[in-house]
Amino acid sequence: MDTKSLTERELDDIYAFAVQLGKDAGKLLLEAAQSRFNGENTQEVVEKDSSVDIVTKTDEDVEAFIKTSINQKYPDHAFVGEESYSKGSSRAYLISDAAPTWCVDPLDGTVNYTHLFPMFCVSIAFIVGGKPAIGVIYAPFLNQLFTACRGRGAWLNETQRLPLIRNLIPPMPKNAPSGCVFSCEWGKDRKDRPDGNLHRKVESFLNMAAEVGGRGGKGGMVHGVRSLGSATMDLAYTAMGAFDIWWEGGCWEWDVAAGIAILQEAGGLLTTANPPEDPSTAQIEDVKLGSRLYLAIRPAGPSGTESGREGQERTVREVWRRARELDYTRPGA
Amino acid sequence: MDTKSLTERELDDIYAFAVQLGKDAGKLLLEAAQSRFNGENTQEVVEKDSSVDIVTKTDEDVEAFIKTSINQKYPDHAFVGEESYSKGSSRAYLISDAAPTWCVDPLDGTVNYTHLFPMFCVSIAFIVGGKPAIGVIYAPFLNQLFTACRGRGAWLNETQRLPLIRNLIPPMPKNAPSGCVFSCEWGKDRKDRPDGNLHRKVESFLNMAAEVGGRGGKGGMVHGVRSLGSATMDLAYTAMGAFDIWWEGGCWEWDVAAGIAILQEAGGLLTTANPPEDPSTAQIEDVKLGSRLYLAIRPAGPSGTESGREGQERTVREVWRRARELDYTRPGA
Repeated sequence: MDTKSLTERELDDIYAFAVQLGKDAGKLLLEAAQSRFNGENTQEVVEKDSSVDIVTKTDEDVEAFIKTSINQKYPDHAFVGEESYSKGSSRAYLISDAAPTWCVDPLDGTVNYTHLFPMFCVSIAFIVGGKPAIGVIYAPFLNQLFTACRGRGAWLNETQRLPLIRNLIPPMPKNAPSGCVFSCEWGKDRKDRPDGNLHRKVESFLNMAAEVGGRGGKGGMVHGVRSLGSATMDLAYTAMGAFDIWWEGGCWEWDVAAGIAILQEAGGLLTTANPPEDPSTAQIEDVKLGSRLYLAIRPAGPSGTESGREGQERTVREVWRRARELDYTRPGA
Repeated sequence: MDTKSLTERELDDIYAFAVQLGKDAGKLLLEAAQSRFNGENTQEVVEKDSSVDIVTKTDEDVEAFIKTSINQKYPDHAFVGEESYSKGSSRAYLISDAAPTWCVDPLDGTVNYTHLFPMFCVSIAFIVGGKPAIGVIYAPFLNQLFTACRGRGAWLNETQRLPLIRNLIPPMPKNAPSGCVFSCEWGKDRKDRPDGNLHRKVESFLNMAAEVGGRGGKGGMVHGVRSLGSATMDLAYTAMGAFDIWWEGGCWEWDVAAGIAILQEAGGLLTTANPPEDPSTAQIEDVKLGSRLYLAIRPAGPSGTESGREGQERTVREVWRRARELDYTRPGA
């Protein structure tokens, strides 16, 4: 990572600023959610469907708050946010290596937020040299704050270092994905095409879930299948060690940038969701932030026979062997 | 519900006792989880697979604590707990109408607990006349306490009445299941039989998720599909209004008894998961506690054209239309 242009002290200051910004933004999210408990905005909540408007307004308000705060403090830094991106004319990948860039999702898990399911959060990443150096994720309804800065560890609520189990970090299970908690999302592409993303995803989920020996040898018998409806929270829980594997396509960079910083700082591995031609021998490369395709493996310790990284890579190959290729491109890419 | 033998004052006392018991038991769960953060029981966490032992020990310890506390305070009450049931010789349905009965799962979401994913909880129900009258669910890692007593409302953390949106409870969406958050679980039956439970479940999930018009007209285009790995938490979030629909087979009575008390007191509907011969006209009956098959609908307010109950029943029929019959029987039933 190129942080040459930033001193460690400057990075510390930016980190402290980002953490406070995350707390303040999360508080705004929670206040907006709570204003609905007792019937403010009643007109908009008569039909749950129409509460999309509430989400949009909260999204925009919180993004404006974050963007203004950053512009005031760091006028030279670039800013990429979900809301401003959606309203812009360009669909290009906007994060360059040239300037330090903030990449922000003011509200990840919008469907959850609409329905007041607690798995929603604000996600703030600070990117240097094209790579996430700082990540802040705050889920205010759960009172869970995940933070990381390159070289300074990853933390839950600023006191509990991640992964949670620390002095002997568990290796990946011998027969992974068996023994693993597998996190995945159904997503928004629900087209009923025989070979569309929905069916490719479900086929992959089934391979991971089915008994060993089933599915023509692809049965993975994972310990559990989880779907939270938030890519950001999926990554946070993978960094925590609670999810062993997260596999997903279709995310945007603001969904994952903060989670990547936290996962990598905790010792997790992140690569692409789509299986290469030969899953058993292909190079396992670091994921590209704009790729929209992600496979995350939790932090892992060594076993008697392999290093933590070897266990993670073995798990990546076992997932690739069971996963279908997903079709998510960048508009204009 | 037959509470004739209990005065309202007695029920109040039992409710207060149950809430404190839930808090104390949840604290024990959290302490046992935290003891693993810094490497106590290191031997057992070297392989995540073998941490099943930890779970069993915690399960047994917490159930023993709960059972002893109840026996001391209410020696005449019956007790059914997951651990004691599993070790007993009978597989019969043990809850009778004769005596007030406590039905307890000391740790629901055991896979989550093993992996330290926060969605685990203690579940305590008090049953009178065969029906859950009191429910206490405490998820200590989330600091979320759900409580209810027949006639006294359902509550989150003792201060926020459920459902969360109150002064104008949203009706069910007009085109439900479209617009609904659908909660479901993959469960433990992973046999790769063409018409086994795993494939029937996935077919039902796909029907609920796919675009309207897809799946031969069964596409439900739900707003989101969620899987938490805890039937108890699923029911709590349905009572909260965060999940619109929960559909599941395979649960035992201790998984759901407390959640049923909370959901029903919040105004939710609970019936059977398995579709009747004619989903559009069949009577919608209250679920039987020992049935192992559950379909829950969140509390719903009236719209301009139907009552809350009518909206819930309409949603039940739409789920039945998309759901396959599941095969879960009681051993010996």
